[in-house]
Amino acid sequence: MKPITSFSELTTYVTSSDSRKRLAVANALDSHTLEAVMRSVETGFIEAFLVGDRNGIEEQLAAFKPSPFVHIVNVTDSYEATLEAVRMVRHGECDILMKGLVNTDVILRAVLDKEKGLHSPGNVLAFNAGLKIPNYHKMLFFTDPAVIPDPNKEQRIATIRYAVHTAHRFGIPNPKVALIHATEKPSPKIRYMQDYVDIMEMYRNGEFPDCIIDGPVDIFLALDKERGAIKHIPTPILGDADILIFPDFDAANVFYKGVSVFANAEMAGLLYGTDKPVVITSRSESTDSKFYSICMACVLV
Amino acid sequence: MKPITSFSELTTYVTSSDSRKRLAVANALDSHTLEAVMRSVETGFIEAFLVGDRNGIEEQLAAFKPSPFVHIVNVTDSYEATLEAVRMVRHGECDILMKGLVNTDVILRAVLDKEKGLHSPGNVLAFNAGLKIPNYHKMLFFTDPAVIPDPNKEQRIATIRYAVHTAHRFGIPNPKVALIHATEKPSPKIRYMQDYVDIMEMYRNGEFPDCIIDGPVDIFLALDKERGAIKHIPTPILGDADILIFPDFDAANVFYKGVSVFANAEMAGLLYGTDKPVVITSRSESTDSKFYSICMACVLV
Repeated sequence: MKPITSFSELTTYVTSSDSRKRLAVANALDSHTLEAVMRSVETGFIEAFLVGDRNGIEEQLAAFKPSPFVHIVNVTDSYEATLEAVRMVRHGECDILMKGLVNTDVILRAVLDKEKGLHSPGNVLAFNAGLKIPNYHKMLFFTDPAVIPDPNKEQRIATIRYAVHTAHRFGIPNPKVALIHATEKPSPKIRYMQDYVDIMEMYRNGEFPDCIIDGPVDIFLALDKERGAIKHIPTPILGDADILIFPDFDAANVFYKGVSVFANAEMAGLLYGTDKPVVITSRSESTDSKFYSICMACVLV
Repeated sequence: MKPITSFSELTTYVTSSDSRKRLAVANALDSHTLEAVMRSVETGFIEAFLVGDRNGIEEQLAAFKPSPFVHIVNVTDSYEATLEAVRMVRHGECDILMKGLVNTDVILRAVLDKEKGLHSPGNVLAFNAGLKIPNYHKMLFFTDPAVIPDPNKEQRIATIRYAVHTAHRFGIPNPKVALIHATEKPSPKIRYMQDYVDIMEMYRNGEFPDCIIDGPVDIFLALDKERGAIKHIPTPILGDADILIFPDFDAANVFYKGVSVFANAEMAGLLYGTDKPVVITSRSESTDSKFYSICMACVLV
C-alpha cells in the first residue's frame, strides 16, 4: 500500500473500498455533524444510521440530497438515542459510532458501560489524532490532546501503540515516533522523564516493533530538518517525525490548536481503546475535521 | 505611546531613542550572536562591549564594518570573560548582558551568584518572550518556554507580572492575559488548576491592575475570534490575547516552536527576575531572533 500523506489521499483511499462502512450517529440532530456524515454518504464510503427524533432529523435532512444509504432510527429521547446507537455498534449492526447532539460525558458514559458499552476492561482510553499541516511533507499523528490530562507510563505506552497502529494502517510501515519535551535533555527533574527513559529502554529491547522511537526531542528536532540540524544531536527522526507523543494533553492541545489557527492545519481524531472506532469531535472543530475523522475511523475498522 | 505591534515597529522604536544602550557580550566569539550584535550597532541603538579573547574577536569582526561603538574587552579565558561581562553590567558600566560562546548553565551560575551576580534573592527567575506570528494582528507575549519546568503559584504570578510589565513597555496599557489550558473547563483534577482559580480571585480583588485576565481558556478562545465564538463562552479575551500564560514550559515550548516552524513566527526572549536584562537565546534560534531579543532588552532597560 502507498502511504497516505494527506486528507485528500485518505478520502480517495476510503472511497476506493468495495463496501460502505456503517456509521451510527448518536442523536443525529447536530447540523455540522450531519453535514460531515452526508458528505461521507455522498462521497460513497458510508452508510449512515441516524439515531434520534425522526421529525427533527427529517427536518435537517431536507437540506441534503436523499440517499438510499441513509436510515433514520426513530428514538425521540436523546439519552435513549445515544444508548441505541452504542447498542447497534456493540451488536455489529454498525461499524463506527459518532457523537451527534449529545454531551461528551453522556456518550462517554454509554461507551464505557461495562455491560452495554464498547470498552473492554483494561484497555486504555485515549485520543489519537492525525494532523495535516500544509507545509509539512506528510501526515502527522499525535496524542493525546483531549482525554488523558497527565498520562502515566502504562497510558503513555498505550498511546504509542495506538498511534503506531494507525500509522501502519495509513501505509507507513516504520513510523518515526518522537517523544516530545521542551529540550532534548533528559533532565531527571521532569515528572514524566523516567517514563521516556523506560520507553527508550523497552524500544531498544525490541518491545516496539515496526517503528523508530527517539526522545526526548523538541519540536525543532522532530519536525524541522534545518533548525534541528543546528543542535548537532544525532537522531533518526531529524525533521521527519510521523508521530508526536506529547508529555501531557495541554502540550498536545496547544500545539495542534496553534498550527490550526496560524498554519491552516486540519485535524482528524478518534477515541482509542474502544472495541470499535468512536468519532467524538468538539463543537469548535470544523465540518472538514468531522468528515476527516469519519474517514480515519474507516481506515481503522 | 503608540502600541508596538511588530518587530519592525520595535526596531524603529528602539532606534528612535536618544542614546545607545550599552551591551556586554560574554565571550563574544559566537558568529550568530556577533551578527545580531553588529546589526544592533549598525542600526544605531547599541554600543557593544565584546568581552573575550581579542585575537579571536578581531578575526570575527573582520566580516563587519568597523564602528566606534564597538569595544573589545580582552579576557582570554571564556569563564573569566563571562564573569567580567557580568561584573560590567552589575557595576553599571553596561545596561544589558548577552550570552556569547558560553554554556547556558555557566552564564546562569554567574548571573545567580549572590555576591557578584545580577540577581536579588527572592526574585523569581523566568523566561518571557514576545512572538510575532505573521497572521496574528499584534505582538503576542508568552511565558515560560525555557526556565521553569512546572511553575508553582508564586512563580506563575511572577511570570504574569513580568509579561504585563513588558506589554506596558510595548505601549499596551491594558493587556489581555489568557491563562491557557486544554479546555475552558476548570477541572479540579488538573494539577495547576487551583493556581488559576486563585489568580482569578486575586485579579477580581484588584491585585493585578492595568491588565485583563481570564482563564482557563484554550488557544481557540485566546487567539481565534471565529473558532472561539463557536464555544459561546463569555470572555473579554475572545481572539485578542496579548499574553499567554502556559501551564508549564512544555506547553509554552511546543506552541512557539510549532508556529515558528509552520507559521513563520519570529521570537524574542529574555531572562526576567534579574536586576538588568539578560539576553540568552538558544543556538537553534535565528540571528533575527537574537537581534529582536536585543531590541526587547532595550525597551526594558
